[in-house]
Amino acid sequence: MLKQDSATYRGFRNPGIRLTEDLSPQLAAAYGSRIPTLLPAIHAFDKAHIVMLVECSLLSRAHGAALLRALRTMEGEGVVQVRSKVGGGLHSGEQYLIRKLGEEIGGRIHLARSSGDLSSVSMNVTQRGKLLELMRGVNALRRTLIDLSRQHTGTILPGYSFGQQAQPMTLAHLWLSWAATLERDFERLHGTYGRINRSAAGAAIMVGSEFPVDRKRTAELLGFDAVHENCADAILELTNDDSLEVPAMVSILYHSLAKWADDLINWSTSEYSFVDIPDRYCGTSSIMMQKKNVVGPAEVKGGAAEALGGFVVAYHGLKGPTGMPVTERYHACEILWKVSDSAVRDLAWFQELLPALVINKPHMREQSWRGWATVTDLAGALVTVCDLPWRSAHQIVGIAVRLCEERDLGPADITPALLDEAAQLYHGKPAGLDQDTISRTLEPERFIAARILQGGPAKEESLRQADVFEGNLVAHEALVAGIDGRLAASAAKLEAAVDALLAAEGA
Amino acid sequence: MLKQDSATYRGFRNPGIRLTEDLSPQLAAAYGSRIPTLLPAIHAFDKAHIVMLVECSLLSRAHGAALLRALRTMEGEGVVQVRSKVGGGLHSGEQYLIRKLGEEIGGRIHLARSSGDLSSVSMNVTQRGKLLELMRGVNALRRTLIDLSRQHTGTILPGYSFGQQAQPMTLAHLWLSWAATLERDFERLHGTYGRINRSAAGAAIMVGSEFPVDRKRTAELLGFDAVHENCADAILELTNDDSLEVPAMVSILYHSLAKWADDLINWSTSEYSFVDIPDRYCGTSSIMMQKKNVVGPAEVKGGAAEALGGFVVAYHGLKGPTGMPVTERYHACEILWKVSDSAVRDLAWFQELLPALVINKPHMREQSWRGWATVTDLAGALVTVCDLPWRSAHQIVGIAVRLCEERDLGPADITPALLDEAAQLYHGKPAGLDQDTISRTLEPERFIAARILQGGPAKEESLRQADVFEGNLVAHEALVAGIDGRLAASAAKLEAAVDALLAAEGA
Amino acid sequence: MLKQDSATYRGFRNPGIRLTEDLSPQLAAAYGSRIPTLLPAIHAFDKAHIVMLVECSLLSRAHGAALLRALRTMEGEGVVQVRSKVGGGLHSGEQYLIRKLGEEIGGRIHLARSSGDLSSVSMNVTQRGKLLELMRGVNALRRTLIDLSRQHTGTILPGYSFGQQAQPMTLAHLWLSWAATLERDFERLHGTYGRINRSAAGAAIMVGSEFPVDRKRTAELLGFDAVHENCADAILELTNDDSLEVPAMVSILYHSLAKWADDLINWSTSEYSFVDIPDRYCGTSSIMMQKKNVVGPAEVKGGAAEALGGFVVAYHGLKGPTGMPVTERYHACEILWKVSDSAVRDLAWFQELLPALVINKPHMREQSWRGWATVTDLAGALVTVCDLPWRSAHQIVGIAVRLCEERDLGPADITPALLDEAAQLYHGKPAGLDQDTISRTLEPERFIAARILQGGPAKEESLRQADVFEGNLVAHEALVAGIDGRLAASAAKLEAAVDALLAAEGA
Amino acid sequence: MLKQDSATYRGFRNPGIRLTEDLSPQLAAAYGSRIPTLLPAIHAFDKAHIVMLVECSLLSRAHGAALLRALRTMEGEGVVQVRSKVGGGLHSGEQYLIRKLGEEIGGRIHLARSSGDLSSVSMNVTQRGKLLELMRGVNALRRTLIDLSRQHTGTILPGYSFGQQAQPMTLAHLWLSWAATLERDFERLHGTYGRINRSAAGAAIMVGSEFPVDRKRTAELLGFDAVHENCADAILELTNDDSLEVPAMVSILYHSLAKWADDLINWSTSEYSFVDIPDRYCGTSSIMMQKKNVVGPAEVKGGAAEALGGFVVAYHGLKGPTGMPVTERYHACEILWKVSDSAVRDLAWFQELLPALVINKPHMREQSWRGWATVTDLAGALVTVCDLPWRSAHQIVGIAVRLCEERDLGPADITPALLDEAAQLYHGKPAGLDQDTISRTLEPERFIAARILQGGPAKEESLRQADVFEGNLVAHEALVAGIDGRLAASAAKLEAAVDALLAAEGA
Repeated sequence: MLKQDSATYRGFRNPGIRLTEDLSPQLAAAYGSRIPTLLPAIHAFDKAHIVMLVECSLLSRAHGAALLRALRTMEGEGVVQVRSKVGGGLHSGEQYLIRKLGEEIGGRIHLARSSGDLSSVSMNVTQRGKLLELMRGVNALRRTLIDLSRQHTGTILPGYSFGQQAQPMTLAHLWLSWAATLERDFERLHGTYGRINRSAAGAAIMVGSEFPVDRKRTAELLGFDAVHENCADAILELTNDDSLEVPAMVSILYHSLAKWADDLINWSTSEYSFVDIPDRYCGTSSIMMQKKNVVGPAEVKGGAAEALGGFVVAYHGLKGPTGMPVTERYHACEILWKVSDSAVRDLAWFQELLPALVINKPHMREQSWRGWATVTDLAGALVTVCDLPWRSAHQIVGIAVRLCEERDLGPADITPALLDEAAQLYHGKPAGLDQDTISRTLEPERFIAARILQGGPAKEESLRQADVFEGNLVAHEALVAGIDGRLAASAAKLEAAVDALLAAEGA
Repeated sequence: MLKQDSATYRGFRNPGIRLTEDLSPQLAAAYGSRIPTLLPAIHAFDKAHIVMLVECSLLSRAHGAALLRALRTMEGEGVVQVRSKVGGGLHSGEQYLIRKLGEEIGGRIHLARSSGDLSSVSMNVTQRGKLLELMRGVNALRRTLIDLSRQHTGTILPGYSFGQQAQPMTLAHLWLSWAATLERDFERLHGTYGRINRSAAGAAIMVGSEFPVDRKRTAELLGFDAVHENCADAILELTNDDSLEVPAMVSILYHSLAKWADDLINWSTSEYSFVDIPDRYCGTSSIMMQKKNVVGPAEVKGGAAEALGGFVVAYHGLKGPTGMPVTERYHACEILWKVSDSAVRDLAWFQELLPALVINKPHMREQSWRGWATVTDLAGALVTVCDLPWRSAHQIVGIAVRLCEERDLGPADITPALLDEAAQLYHGKPAGLDQDTISRTLEPERFIAARILQGGPAKEESLRQADVFEGNLVAHEALVAGIDGRLAASAAKLEAAVDALLAAEGA
Repeated sequence: MLKQDSATYRGFRNPGIRLTEDLSPQLAAAYGSRIPTLLPAIHAFDKAHIVMLVECSLLSRAHGAALLRALRTMEGEGVVQVRSKVGGGLHSGEQYLIRKLGEEIGGRIHLARSSGDLSSVSMNVTQRGKLLELMRGVNALRRTLIDLSRQHTGTILPGYSFGQQAQPMTLAHLWLSWAATLERDFERLHGTYGRINRSAAGAAIMVGSEFPVDRKRTAELLGFDAVHENCADAILELTNDDSLEVPAMVSILYHSLAKWADDLINWSTSEYSFVDIPDRYCGTSSIMMQKKNVVGPAEVKGGAAEALGGFVVAYHGLKGPTGMPVTERYHACEILWKVSDSAVRDLAWFQELLPALVINKPHMREQSWRGWATVTDLAGALVTVCDLPWRSAHQIVGIAVRLCEERDLGPADITPALLDEAAQLYHGKPAGLDQDTISRTLEPERFIAARILQGGPAKEESLRQADVFEGNLVAHEALVAGIDGRLAASAAKLEAAVDALLAAEGA
Repeated sequence: MLKQDSATYRGFRNPGIRLTEDLSPQLAAAYGSRIPTLLPAIHAFDKAHIVMLVECSLLSRAHGAALLRALRTMEGEGVVQVRSKVGGGLHSGEQYLIRKLGEEIGGRIHLARSSGDLSSVSMNVTQRGKLLELMRGVNALRRTLIDLSRQHTGTILPGYSFGQQAQPMTLAHLWLSWAATLERDFERLHGTYGRINRSAAGAAIMVGSEFPVDRKRTAELLGFDAVHENCADAILELTNDDSLEVPAMVSILYHSLAKWADDLINWSTSEYSFVDIPDRYCGTSSIMMQKKNVVGPAEVKGGAAEALGGFVVAYHGLKGPTGMPVTERYHACEILWKVSDSAVRDLAWFQELLPALVINKPHMREQSWRGWATVTDLAGALVTVCDLPWRSAHQIVGIAVRLCEERDLGPADITPALLDEAAQLYHGKPAGLDQDTISRTLEPERFIAARILQGGPAKEESLRQADVFEGNLVAHEALVAGIDGRLAASAAKLEAAVDALLAAEGA
C-alpha cells in the first residue's frame, strides 16, 4: 500500500503518488534552510485554520479538538524546534499531526488551503513583524534626535554642500533634519504595513476552494486588518508589488542611516576632528597601534549595500509572467530578513551612539566661519545697509574672497578697505561697510541667531521645530501602540477560541 | 570693471569674481542638457518669489512690477525657449531679467534664495507632475480592467504557478487581481505625492537666510501642500529619501506592467494561442515573413529594466556624507523623467490594448482542464462524498493522475474503475465515485461556479469585487480631482497676485 | 600589568592598550561570523610567513620551528575548528600561538604584516578556489553539451525570437550555442583568475614595512602566480576592481544558466510539451496533486537574482574614497561565497539534468513547421527558382501567410494556387512554384539539411562545430590541469620548507 | 497592387502584406530614436554583404555594382543624415536602394541575412569602437600617472584606511597603484574586445540561410577577428553574456574613476587642504560666493552611478528564455553608449586635471605624521633595538599613544620617559629607546625611505615600479596599435573590393 505508516509519515510528496523519485537532497536542503523564520507564523495559521474549519462545520468538533490539543502539546516542546525536526516546511503542522494522530485525523488540517496561502500568510506575518520592529526603531531614534536637538541649539558646525563648507548650522538643526527624514520613513513603513497586513488565508493557490470557508474569521484570528478581496491577488502579490515594497522601504531607510554613518566617520577623522566615537564602536590595527577604526558606522554602510542588493534580488528574481516565479520569493525573503534585522540593529546603535559622542564644540565653531562660511551675510549687509541688488553684493564679496585667498588672508582679515577695493573693482564705487559691521556679520553665532525664518536654525525656531516633530512622533507612537493592541487582542482571541473548543470537547 | 555689461550678462560665475577661469565647456554642456525639464517650474518659482518679496517688503513694488512684467513678456515668447536661449539654467530668470532690465533691477530677484531651493522646488514640482500623470494613468487602467472584468466572468483560462497549469480561473478574476495591484500602486503614488509636495522655497542652501521671507506664502502660490519644517531637510531630501522614493514607486509599478506584458507575450505564442495582439503593436521580420513580433509588450519590459536601473542610479549616485552628492541628483532625475514618461505611455497602451485583444475563448477553456487543472476538486469530491481526510483524497487522485499519464490518458478518461484502482493502491479500498460525479467535477465551468467564497472567481463574487474595486477607484479619482483643483487654484492665485501687483503699479 | 596572561590571551585589541572599552558584542559577532571561510587560507599564510621570516633572518630558526610545530599540532586537531574556538579571526594563528607558546614566542609571528595583507591574501586565495571550481564546472558542462549535441543533430525544434516561433533548429545547434557561451565564460573566469592570483603578502597596510621581507618567496609558497608590484595596489584592489570583477564574472555566467533554466521550464509546460523533467528536480502541490513544479530550474533563476544582487552589494558597498570602505568587503564576500557555491551546484545540476531529459521529439518536430517557421525558404525558392529579388519574394510569401491565417489554413495547405494568388496580389504576376517544391521546401528536415554554411545547423556542420568546441575545451582543461599542478606543487613546497625547518631544529 | 511604388517605398512592414495595420507611431518613434548610433556600422555591413554576395555568385556583378554605386553616392551626402531621413532603421540601406534603384535591384540586398545579424553586427562594431576608445583613454591616463609618479616620489601624504590616517605614503606610490588598477582595466577591456569582435554576419536569425554565403569573407571586410562558429550563438550572444560583459567592464572601470574623484574632492576641502583644483572644473554658488564647488569630479561619480545602472538595465532587461528578449537589447545599448562616452570623457579629464593640481606639499607632509601615522615604526624600533616580540612592542606603543591622547600630547612630544612609562605599564620593564632614535623614527621621510621592499614607497622602488608599469603600457599600446592597423587594413580592403567591382562594371 502506498499509504504511509503514520509514525514515519514524510509528507505528501512521497514517491509512488504523483512522482516516482525522491526530491534531490540539495533541493530539499535549500528549501528546508529557508523555512525556520516562517514557522511561528505557520503555527498560528494552523491553529486559526482549524478553529475556522470547525466553526464553518468543515471539520468535526472532535477532530478539531484533537488537532488543537496536539498543537498545544507541540507548543510545550517548542514550536520551531519540533517543526524543524519533524520536517515538511510549510506543512510541518500536518506532518506532526499525522505522525501524532494518524492520517485519519491529522490528514484533515489541510482542507481548503494550499502552499499558496500558507506561504503568503506566513511571509506577510513575518514581514509585518519586521515592519513593526522597524517602526519602533525609527520612532525611538526620532525621540533621541529630538531630545538631543534641544540640547544642541548652540552647537555650531559648518554645513556642507559638494563636500565643501557652505554655511554654519547647528547640530540641533542638522539632527532635526534627520528627525524629519525619519518621520517620512515612519509614514512609508506604516503605509506599507497597511498594504501588507491583509490576509490570504483561504485563497489557496489563487482561486480559493469550493469549501465555504470564512476568510474573515481566519484573518481576524491572525491579526490581519483585512482580507484580500481577490484570491488571485492574495497569492500573486507575493511575487508582485508587495514583495518589492518592503525591500524598497527598508533600503530607503538604510540609505539615510548610511549617509549619517558617513557623517560620523568624517567627523571622527583627524581632518575634521569634530567628534570622538566611543571605543566600543571601534577597532584598532594589528600593526598601526594608533588607529581607531570606526567599524560600527562602517557596518551600517555595509548594511545599506545589502539593502540595495536585497531590492535588486527581489526585483530581478520575481520578473516573469504571472505565476512563473515562486521559489524566487524565498531568495528575496532570505536577504530581506537579514537586512531588516540589520536595520533594526543599526537604528538601536544610532540611539546609543549619538548621545555618547564626545563633541569638540570649539573646533566645530571655528570651522564654521574660518573657511568663509559666513560671508554670505556680508553680501546681505551690503543689501541691507547699502541697498545694493543681491547680485551686485554677491559679486563684490566674491571678489573680496578671491583677493583674500590670493593674499593668504582669512575672514578675520577682511577690512573696510579690502571690501572697498573689491567694490571698486566691481563697479567703481566703494562698499562702505565699517569694521564693526563686518566683524559682527561674520560671527557664526550672529549668523545662526538671525535665521529665525520658518525652518531656520535660530534657537527659538529649532525648539519650535522640535515641538512640531515631537507632536508628530507622539501621534506615530500611538499608531504603533494601536497596532500592538490589535495584534495582542487577536492573539488572545485565537487562544480563547482554542480554549473554548478544547473545553467543549472536554480536553 | 568686473561688472558685466547687462546686455551680454552671462551669469554670476564670471571669471574674475571668485574664480579665474571659465567652466569647462563639457561641464557646462552636461549641466545645460539637464535643465529644460525644470524650466516651467523655475519660472513659476521666479514669479512666486517676486510676489512674496514684495509682500514682505524685501523688494519695492516698483521693482517687483518691473520684474514680473518682464517675465510676462517672456511668457509671450515661450518660457522654455527663451530660457534655454538666454542660458543660466536654474538662474535663467535672473539672467533674462538682468539682460532686459539691468543688474540694478534684475539683480534683485535672487535675494534670500539659492540654487538649493531653486533645484529642490523645481525638481519636486516636476516630480509632482509626473506622479500626477502616473496616478491618472493608473486610475484609467483600473477602470479599463474593472469594465473588462465585468464582461469576462465567463472567460475561463488556466491559472499558472511555477509556469505550469494549476487551476482554472477567469479573465475577470485575473484582471481584478491586476486592478487590486494597481489600487495599491495608486495608494503608494498618492502617499509619495504627499511627501514630495512640500516646499523648500526660502530654505536657500540649508539654513535659509536672515531676510524675513514668508515661506508659507511662496508655497501657497506654487501649489505645495506644506512647507518643509526644517530648511536642512528641505534641501537635503533631494539627495536623500525623497529622491529614492519616487524611483522606487515607479519601479514597483513597472514591475507589474512588465509581468502583464510577459503574460500577453506568452498568450500570443503558438504554444498558448490564447490571444491575438492587434497588428499595430507588432512588427514583422525582414526574413521570416510569418512573424508577428510583439514589440509593444517588449517595450514595456525594457521600460521596467530602466526603472530598476533608475532606482539603482539614484541610490548609488546619492550615497555619501550629508551634502556631498549634489550634481548626482541630476543623473538620478534624468533617468527618472525618462522612466516616468515611459510608464505613463505604457499605462495608456494597456488601456488601449486589453480591450482590443482577440481572445480565443474555446481554446483557453479547453486548456483549463485538459492538463488536469480541475482534478483538485476530484479530491474535494472524495472528501465531501466519502468523508475522506483531505490528505488521503489528495494522494488517491495523485496516484490516479500518475496512472493516467503512464497510460497516455487524459482527464476525460478518468473512470470510476481507475479512481478505484488508485484508491486500492493507496489504502486498499475503492474510491466509490460514479462517472457522472467524476465528469461533472472535472468541468471547468462547475469548478469556477463553485468558488463563491470571498475572493473567489464565481461570477457573482467577481461582480461583487468589481463593485468594491470601483468604489475605491471612485474615491481615488476624487483624490486626483482634489489635487487638480488645488493646483489650479494656486496657479490662479499666483496669476492674480501678479495681476494685482502689476495693476497697482500701473503696468 | 597590562600584558595579558598568555593562557587566556584575547587579542591585541585589549582594553587598556590603545582603547579603553571592549568592542560591542554585536560588532564582534558580525565580524566573527564572516571569518570561517577564510581560515584555511590564513593558516597557509601563517606557515608561509614564518618560513619566509626565518629564511630572511627576521625570526630565529628556533622560534620559527616552535611556531611551525605548534601550527602542525593545530592541524591535527582541525584548523577551522581550533581557530574558530580560539577566536581572533584573521589573527587566530597568533592568538593560538601566544596561548600555546607565550607572547615571547607567539608574539613574533605578526612581524612585517598587517590585517591588510592577511585579508587580501585570504580573500584572494578563497576567491581563487571558487574560480577554480567554477572553471571546472563550466568545462564539465561544456563536455556534456558537446556530447549531447553529437547525439541530437537530428532532433528538430523551433527556434524562437520575441518569444515566437522563428525558424527550425536542432537541439545540437542550440546546445552548441550554449557551449560557445560557456567557452567565453571559461575565458572570462580564467582571465579573472590571472588577475586575482597575485600576492599581497608583505604589503602590510599599503606601504609594506621596513623589514627586508622576501615577498616573492611567500607568494611562491602560497601558489600565487605573481606578486603585486605595488603594495598600495595589493591592499586596495580588495575594495577596488578585483572585488568587482569576480562577482561580475559569476553574475554573467549565472545569467546564461538562468536563461537556460527558463528554457527548460517553458519546454516542460503543457503548452510546449517538449520535454519531461525528471521527478527528482520537481515538487508537487499540497492541493493540486497533478502538479509537477519544476523547482530545480527555479532555484537556478533565484541564484541568478542573488548573483546580480551580489554585484550590486559589492559595487555600492565599496564606493567611496580610497581607504574608506574596508568592512564592506566582508558584505561583498559573504554574498559572493554563497553565489559562487550555488553556481557550482547549478553547473553540476545541468550536467546531470540535460542527459536525463525525456524529449518529445515528434512534437518538437511538428512545432518547428506547423506554426510557419519554415516559410522563409519558400521565399528562398522564389528567389532561386524564379529569380525574384528577395524583398519581392518575402512580401509575396508574407501575403500568402496572411491569406492562410484569414482562411484558417496551415502551412500544409499552401498550394501553388494560393501562392499565385498572393503573387498576383503583390505584383500582378503568379509565383509559379509547383506543389512538390512547396511541400519539400516546407519540410523541417530539408530546412536544416540545407544550412551547411559555417555556423549552420546541418548535421555535418554541427559535428564540425562540436569538434572545434571540443578542441578548445581540451585546451582549457589543460589550463585547469596546469593550475592544479602549480597549486599542488606550491603546497608541497610549503610543507617541504616546514619539514626542513623542523628537521633542522630537531623537532 | 500591394507592391509599393519605389519612389515612396516605406519598408517591408507595410500594411497589407503580413500585417494589416501600421505600427503604432509611438513604437516607431521609440525604435527610430535608437538607430542613429548604429548607422555607420550598418552602412559598412551593407557594402561588405553586397561584395560577398557578388563574390559568391548570389548577386550579379551588374546588380552589385549598381547597389554599391548608390551607396557611394549616399556617402557623399552623409551616411547618417541620409539614412536617418530615409528611415527604416537597420534596413535604411535597403530602403534607400529601393527608392533609388527600384525593388528589382534594391530588393536584392537583403538576401541571406536578417535583422538578427544586422543588429548583432552593428551593435558589436559599435561596442568595439567604444572599447577601443576606452582602451586608448585608459592607456593615456596610465602614461600620465606613470609620468607624474616619477615627479612625486618625495611628495608625502598620509595613506588612509577606514577613512583614518594610517601610514605615510607618497603621491608616486598612490598614483602607481592607480596605474596598476588601470593596467588590469586594460587587460579586461582587451579580453572583452577579443570576445566581442566576432562576426555574426550571415547568421541571419540563428540558423543562417540555405544560400552558400562566405561568412569569413564578410567578417574580414568588416574588421572582425573571427566568425562566430555557431549561428545561434552569433545572434543570441547579444541577449546573453556579451551584452553583459561590456557594461560590466565599463562599470568596473568607472568604479575606480569615481573613487579617485572622491579622493580629489576630499583633498580639496578645507579639512584636508591637500590640493587646489583648477577653477575650470569648479562652479561657485549663487548665494555662497566663497564656494568652489568641485563639479567636475562630481560628474565622474554620477557617471559611475549610471554605469552600475547600465549593467542592471542589461542584466534585468535580458532575463528570460532564449529568444524572448530582443527589443530590450536597445534599452541596454542606449545607456551603455552614454556611459561609455562619459567614461572616455572622464578618462580625458583625469589626464588633464592631475598635472594641473596645485599641491600643498608641506601640509600633506605634516599630516602624514602629526596624527600618529608613523608610530608603527616605533614598535619596529623596539623589535630591532630591544629584540621585543612584535606584539609586545605594538602594545607598548599603543599604550604610549593612549597616554599622549589623554594628556593632549602629539607625536613630537614622545620622550624616552613616556615610552618607558608605557613599557612599565605593559610588562614592568622600561623600553629603553633614546630621544634621537624616537625622533628619527617618527620622521615621515625616513619612514618612506626605509620601505625599499618590493612594492614599497621608497624612491628607488617607486622608480622601479614606474619602469615596470611603463613596460607593460608600451606592450598594451602596441596591442591597440595592432588593432588600429587591422581595422584600417580591413576598411581599405572593403573599399578596394568595392572599387574593383565598380571598375569591372565600368562604374
